Amino acid sequence: MPTNEVEKFKKRRNYLNDIVMKYAKTNTKRFYALDSKVYLEGALPRKTKEMMGLVASLVLRCDDCVEYHMIRCAEENVSDSEMEEALSIALVVGGSITIPHLRRAFEIWDDLKKKKSRGGSQS
Amino acid sequence: MPTNEVEKFKKRRNYLNDIVMKYAKTNTKRFYALDSKVYLEGALPRKTKEMMGLVASLVLRCDDCVEYHMIRCAEENVSDSEMEEALSIALVVGGSITIPHLRRAFEIWDDLKKKKSRGGSQS
Amino acid sequence: MPTNEVEKFKKRRNYLNDIVMKYAKTNTKRFYALDSKVYLEGALPRKTKEMMGLVASLVLRCDDCVEYHMIRCAEENVSDSEMEEALSIALVVGGSITIPHLRRAFEIWDDLKKKKSRGGSQS
Amino acid sequence: MPTNEVEKFKKRRNYLNDIVMKYAKTNTKRFYALDSKVYLEGALPRKTKEMMGLVASLVLRCDDCVEYHMIRCAEENVSDSEMEEALSIALVVGGSITIPHLRRAFEIWDDLKKKKSRGGSQS
Amino acid sequence: MPTNEVEKFKKRRNYLNDIVMKYAKTNTKRFYALDSKVYLEGALPRKTKEMMGLVASLVLRCDDCVEYHMIRCAEENVSDSEMEEALSIALVVGGSITIPHLRRAFEIWDDLKKKKSRGGSQS
Amino acid sequence: MPTNEVEKFKKRRNYLNDIVMKYAKTNTKRFYALDSKVYLEGALPRKTKEMMGLVASLVLRCDDCVEYHMIRCAEENVSDSEMEEALSIALVVGGSITIPHLRRAFEIWDDLKKKKSRGGSQS
Repeated sequence: MPTNEVEKFKKRRNYLNDIVMKYAKTNTKRFYALDSKVYLEGALPRKTKEMMGLVASLVLRCDDCVEYHMIRCAEENVSDSEMEEALSIALVVGGSITIPHLRRAFEIWDDLKKKKSRGGSQS
Repeated sequence: MPTNEVEKFKKRRNYLNDIVMKYAKTNTKRFYALDSKVYLEGALPRKTKEMMGLVASLVLRCDDCVEYHMIRCAEENVSDSEMEEALSIALVVGGSITIPHLRRAFEIWDDLKKKKSRGGSQS
Repeated sequence: MPTNEVEKFKKRRNYLNDIVMKYAKTNTKRFYALDSKVYLEGALPRKTKEMMGLVASLVLRCDDCVEYHMIRCAEENVSDSEMEEALSIALVVGGSITIPHLRRAFEIWDDLKKKKSRGGSQS
Repeated sequence: MPTNEVEKFKKRRNYLNDIVMKYAKTNTKRFYALDSKVYLEGALPRKTKEMMGLVASLVLRCDDCVEYHMIRCAEENVSDSEMEEALSIALVVGGSITIPHLRRAFEIWDDLKKKKSRGGSQS
Repeated sequence: MPTNEVEKFKKRRNYLNDIVMKYAKTNTKRFYALDSKVYLEGALPRKTKEMMGLVASLVLRCDDCVEYHMIRCAEENVSDSEMEEALSIALVVGGSITIPHLRRAFEIWDDLKKKKSRGGSQS
Repeated sequence: MPTNEVEKFKKRRNYLNDIVMKYAKTNTKRFYALDSKVYLEGALPRKTKEMMGLVASLVLRCDDCVEYHMIRCAEENVSDSEMEEALSIALVVGGSITIPHLRRAFEIWDDLKKKKSRGGSQS
């Protein structure tokens, strides 16, 4: 059901991207395209790339970016241990100032796990 | 009418500034004064300065600062194309981590345009 | 009464920390321990350390961190003048981009003062 | 004469970009292309865009980026007053933490002015 | 031979860490210990963790941190393609403000490759 | 003797500030004045304020700002233990990304201590 936080997040994200695209010209559109392409399967697997995007988002302390990569990591079947280790790197690199974002990150992860165990899909 | 987002933003901002001024001494007050003065007409027009403030706010990822300069840019009659070009510079300089803020920036811009076309004033 | 902003903040914080601890392994737990220890009484008094944590939080623009150290500063009996001077250092070091956070900081401080004058405790 | 700081900066920059291009694949190359395009003449003149890039670089405290946009601003005939006003916006937005970069920025500007008055070109 | 940049970097780093340890008490020492532990083999391989540390260092724009993780990535046999993909994620997340650091990163990488092909060790 | 690092730092700083003042108008000059005033004795002693400036400078990772406040802290007779505790707060708040700056901070501190024990003045 599209009633939970993850669905709301995706809906709001799509709604806002539509407004961006209403005004966007070539450069903005190209940036958006590039932003998708760097996470595609290559020499590094998508799963690793999404975790890299997550670590970068956490040290830069962007909740929306963290949430987006969290959802993608769940889709790529990142395990709890892998997630905890990735986030602990971000925590040590970025310091205690990242803790409020870390808390919200684990809250989202916990939601995603519950959803998965109920058989829900993240797509 | 004071019912929309822009009016709410201004009201909340004034309410909070009153609390700041309740505690503020000379240094804090001087900073506030300086923060107004750098955007006044000079060798550079106010319109250019507000767009500079906007670009700085977006790369530093401060939603409130972005909203404030967006409102000012609308008042200075920045066009859609000028706005898109300024924001695309901020996007390229600041990277994809600015995208959530860029989305909210365009949402505000879209609101401001609608308000303008309805004949509303931003003052 | 646990109905105000400060109590809500603490409750939410504890709730989220419980989720973190559900997934946390040794490294994350050690970071949390370290994050408590650096603010303990030592060569520098706790009051000074909490104000340092506050200044660091404001220049790094983390609202939750600011709120946490604000509550701790009230508990350590930081005066209005000491608070204003600490925040003015953060404002000058961090620039106008910190102003939205400064506003919310003074709002919390004002709430904490009212609570104190009503005889409420921050503990 | 190619003996001064500006020439050394450009040479080193080109040397390093050649190394980047030795390893760069499509995404990195596209980012580089985009990074040129957003500063081209459009609804906003190149001069304004270079000053925006400068303000963004100063608040993000990147000396190399500041130097690059300083050189471009000199080429676009930004006046001393325009430069001072742009930098004062960056100073107020970014705070005293930008001062070491502001100092180096004015040092470069001073060099560029002397070079210009000797009839040297920045191209 | 300990004559190149990498060796100089390591020597300077060790020299400075000795000064830190001359003054460091428990908390600082524990932080140092934690900073080693998060990169150890676990659910995620050391190689992945070092690349995560690299991406975090590049988006936070710390040249010394980038150099350290670059050396470790070479030791973990990260390939050119893997390196390029990791850095392109950092570039897109962090924006053009990371380019001066990206340039120096690739310069170090190029040095490390040459050293490797000459049969030198990074240890 | 004006031959050491601290003297070189001060000379270079004064030299560059003279260039800034050659171009500076009212707003820039007022910012400079404000930047001095917030560290003056008040409800909080100068010593505490300089340590706050130091912590803010370290978490924002500005070497020049760190060096400046280090020199001032030595002048205000901050002890080794007080210094270590202030820096450990900055380290934990700012994370491992601050370590290269922390290293250079302790190197300066060590220089300042040696200078003091030789009877040199920091003024």
